[in-house]
Formats: sequence, structure tokens, C-alpha cells
Amino acid sequence: MTKISFQGERGAYSEMAALAYFESDADHGKSTEFVTCQTFHDALNSTENGESEYTVLPIENSIQGSVSESYDALYDTKLTAIGEIYQKIDHCLLGKSEADKIKTVYSHPQALGQCSDFIEKKSLKTIPTYDTAGSAAIIKELDQDDIACIASSNAARIYGLNIIQEGISNNLSNYTRFLILSTEKTKETGNDKTSIIFSIKHESGALYQIIKKFYEKNVNLTKIESRPKKETSWEYNFYVDFEGHQENPEILKLIGELKKQTTFMKILGSYPIGKL
Amino acid sequence: MTKISFQGERGAYSEMAALAYFESDADHGKSTEFVTCQTFHDALNSTENGESEYTVLPIENSIQGSVSESYDALYDTKLTAIGEIYQKIDHCLLGKSEADKIKTVYSHPQALGQCSDFIEKKSLKTIPTYDTAGSAAIIKELDQDDIACIASSNAARIYGLNIIQEGISNNLSNYTRFLILSTEKTKETGNDKTSIIFSIKHESGALYQIIKKFYEKNVNLTKIESRPKKETSWEYNFYVDFEGHQENPEILKLIGELKKQTTFMKILGSYPIGKL
Repeated sequence: MTKISFQGERGAYSEMAALAYFESDADHGKSTEFVTCQTFHDALNSTENGESEYTVLPIENSIQGSVSESYDALYDTKLTAIGEIYQKIDHCLLGKSEADKIKTVYSHPQALGQCSDFIEKKSLKTIPTYDTAGSAAIIKELDQDDIACIASSNAARIYGLNIIQEGISNNLSNYTRFLILSTEKTKETGNDKTSIIFSIKHESGALYQIIKKFYEKNVNLTKIESRPKKETSWEYNFYVDFEGHQENPEILKLIGELKKQTTFMKILGSYPIGKL
Repeated sequence: MTKISFQGERGAYSEMAALAYFESDADHGKSTEFVTCQTFHDALNSTENGESEYTVLPIENSIQGSVSESYDALYDTKLTAIGEIYQKIDHCLLGKSEADKIKTVYSHPQALGQCSDFIEKKSLKTIPTYDTAGSAAIIKELDQDDIACIASSNAARIYGLNIIQEGISNNLSNYTRFLILSTEKTKETGNDKTSIIFSIKHESGALYQIIKKFYEKNVNLTKIESRPKKETSWEYNFYVDFEGHQENPEILKLIGELKKQTTFMKILGSYPIGKL
């Protein structure tokens, strides 16, 4: 039994990502048990405390961009990133009746926004909720013919709702990238990515000197983002993903040089590059 | 009469930012009228269509980081950034009674999170809502002694609620940076910032070559962020702020060189650097 923590209620997209990740992994072919948590911090804490073996954390979405709270939670965690997965976000209209009867639709504002063309075409009234899976729970409880929610097909299964219509997003190319975190570490596979967080001195050219190191070592950056530090307003931490594993001698050398040029550095982990 | 659009209901933090920005500007000492909009896109559209003269748009918060939807809206807009303002986010407990009677508190999940220490100390039940100003409208309507909301002091004034307690955030250093957009353009003041969006070729070292240009011209980057493009999953646009005005000959030259090395470039605008 693999125990997996995630933020949200049963039926959340994080649960779908967890199922997809662990089902495709021969080592984890056993059945899974979920620990649902209120916040990203709670999810990571539950794995740190041994209540679960893994946390599945949404990092960035192809439409909405980075998930700010996840980045903050990564800054604080003692866990290591051991994997990533790109999960398709396939919004469905869920309810107890059929499409023609629906007048009002409940969901998280982001999901409502991502399905605005469908909502407009059907002239539906919208009611914003806290999360997509939560809106499925509400629809189940209210038990009316003229309301529906936007959530995953997995939420339909869990809350016993009909999938009235699939694929209702404006942009069907909607993916979220999730990180898998645990207390373990990974071995180099030859097709890996490493995630780090660092801060630099507040002086002109400091970022240039860092990017130059990657360039000189021919290491490909796959993501760079600056985020304000929590403690001091408008100083930034940099969240960087690059290709290569921290056990590789060349990468190890690069990390050594970066440490000299940064005022803070944390290696979140190295892990096999996920398939898109 | 200056007409200003913003996303959200009356009493939102965007309204406070608008008041602070235009009150401090001698040119706009006239009274203001607000156009409240459902989305960031709607706000920008209303200024593009001449229903208002300005849009006030939240860009990033010192605790939560970037506002993803704003960045997407900036990508699409025809408006020019003409100013920025850092607005303190001072969460207050609002209601009709006093602190001891409150058992449940309504607000946006981010505001609830930012006041978690206060909520825990008082053992309050939390109910997530769509936005902070909206929670004030709900509290006004429900008219009960044992409920309150977390919103701005401005929301208290607008919805006729008492400020039960001020300064209830965990971290009192909570600021949001707003951009002011219009159809106008600005002149160089000597203390300016320019915001641009660009894409680069998908090849190793492309970002390095860009950052190098800034370094060589001794132009200070104040913000860099990569965000997935909407059309093609996991290709990135870069959102960059740097010091200097686009009318300055040196900056003009830099922009010319950047245009050669990017596959797409949009100048959002140059504007006086806001006071923090």
C-alpha cells in the first residue's frame, strides 16, 4: 500500500496525477491510499512526519503559469523532488441530469475561466467555489436537475455524478506539471532534471554571472523564475530547473561554483524528466 | 472626473491602489469614478473601448508572488503601462459586532492564509469566498453577530461594516505591486522602469545571450519571469522589467538589439519607478 498526500479533496487533479504517476511505475504497482490535506504545507508535512510516503504537488500549469503557494512550500520543505509528471487537465461538466436542463454551473474561478467559451455558448450562470472537486461534492449534496459543476472525470466517479459533457475547456492543450516528493533520493538515469532555489547578491550583473556558468558548462535551463522572498519585501529567490543529475560529476562541479556565487542555495532534487 | 477600471467589486485592494495613485498625482486631483469588472481582461477592454481612462492591475504580491492572470492579460492588451504603485495590503477583521463574539470568518483563501496566526489564536472557523471585498458584501447581507470577514478598511467604509481589528496579517510587510495602464504614453523622467515581454529561440544559450546584452549595457534587471505560452504548451514567454526609459537613446539601442535576438517582443511601457 503506497500512501500519497495531496492538497485538496478526493477527486482533485492532484489525485489523477498521483494515480497516473504511480500506476505507470512498476515499482509502485501496489494499491494506493490517499491522505487529503488542506494546504500544500500540510501535504508536505504529512510526508515529512511519515503519515505518507509521497506528496504530489502542482507546480505550474500550461495556461495559468506557476502555482505560487507550491513554490513557497518547496522553499520550506525537507523533502526531495524524486519525479515529475505532466497531467492533462480535462475539464468535464458533471451533474445528475443532461446538458439541456443545466442553468447554473459551480467551479473554481480558474476552471470557470478555462471553460468560458462553453459557458457563454450555453448562457450558464456561474458560481465560484473553492476548488473543482469541492464543487462536485456541492452538486452531489444539492441534488438538483438544473445545476452542474466543472471538475475531473475522476471526481464524477468519486462523488457518483454523471459526466454530462467531456472536453469543455477553451484550450484543450491544458496540462499541469506536478512534482513528486519524498524522503528518498534518486540515482542518475541519464535523462534527468534538477531543481534548485537560490538568492544572489543585490548587485548589477549577479544574475548574469550565474546564467553564464550554465552557458559555459553547456547545461540547458528549462525554467527560471524570480519570486519575492517572504521575509524581506522585493528581494527575490530564483527557482531554476536545468537538465542533468546532481550525482553527475559535471553538474556537481557546476553546483559547487554556483554555491560560491549565491547567498543561499537549496537543491530540491534530481529526477527523471517527465514525458509531455 | 477620472474613470478607472479594475477587476473585482467596490472595496477591493485594486480600488485602494487606484485612490492612492491618483490622489498623489497633481494632474489627477479631480474626483474619480470606478468601473468594476469581472476579469482582468474586462478591465483592460473597458479602457481600450474608452469606457474608462485607466486600468489598475495587480501584478505581484510580496508574499504570494506574481498574479498569473494579470500577466496573461498584459500579453493581450493594446494599452501602455504608464505607472506603478506599491500598495500595502492591510487585512482587517470586519463585521457588525466585536472580536469576542466572532466564531466564523469569511474571505478569499489567500487572505485567510495570510491571517492564519490570528485565525488559529482565536479558534475561528473559516469559509473561503471568491474575493475579499465580496466577503464584506456577504457579511453585510447575512447581518449576524458571530460572523466576520477579512478585507480592507476601504471595504468596511463601502459596505458599512465596523473595523473590529486592524493589522491581523501574519506578516505585516505585505505589499502588492500594481501597474497603471492607459492609451497614453509617458515621457522620460530620469528614474524610470520599462516592462517588456519576449520569446526566444528554443536553443541552448539563447537566454544567456539576452541577459548578456543587459549586462554589457549596464542596465539593471529588476524582474525576470518565464511563463508558459498559451498557444503551445511549455514554450515560454519572458516577462522582464529593467531600469531606464524606452525614449532614452541607450535603451532604444538595447531594445533594437534585443529585437534581433528574440522571436517575439512587446514593449508594455516605460514609467516612473514607484516608491516602496
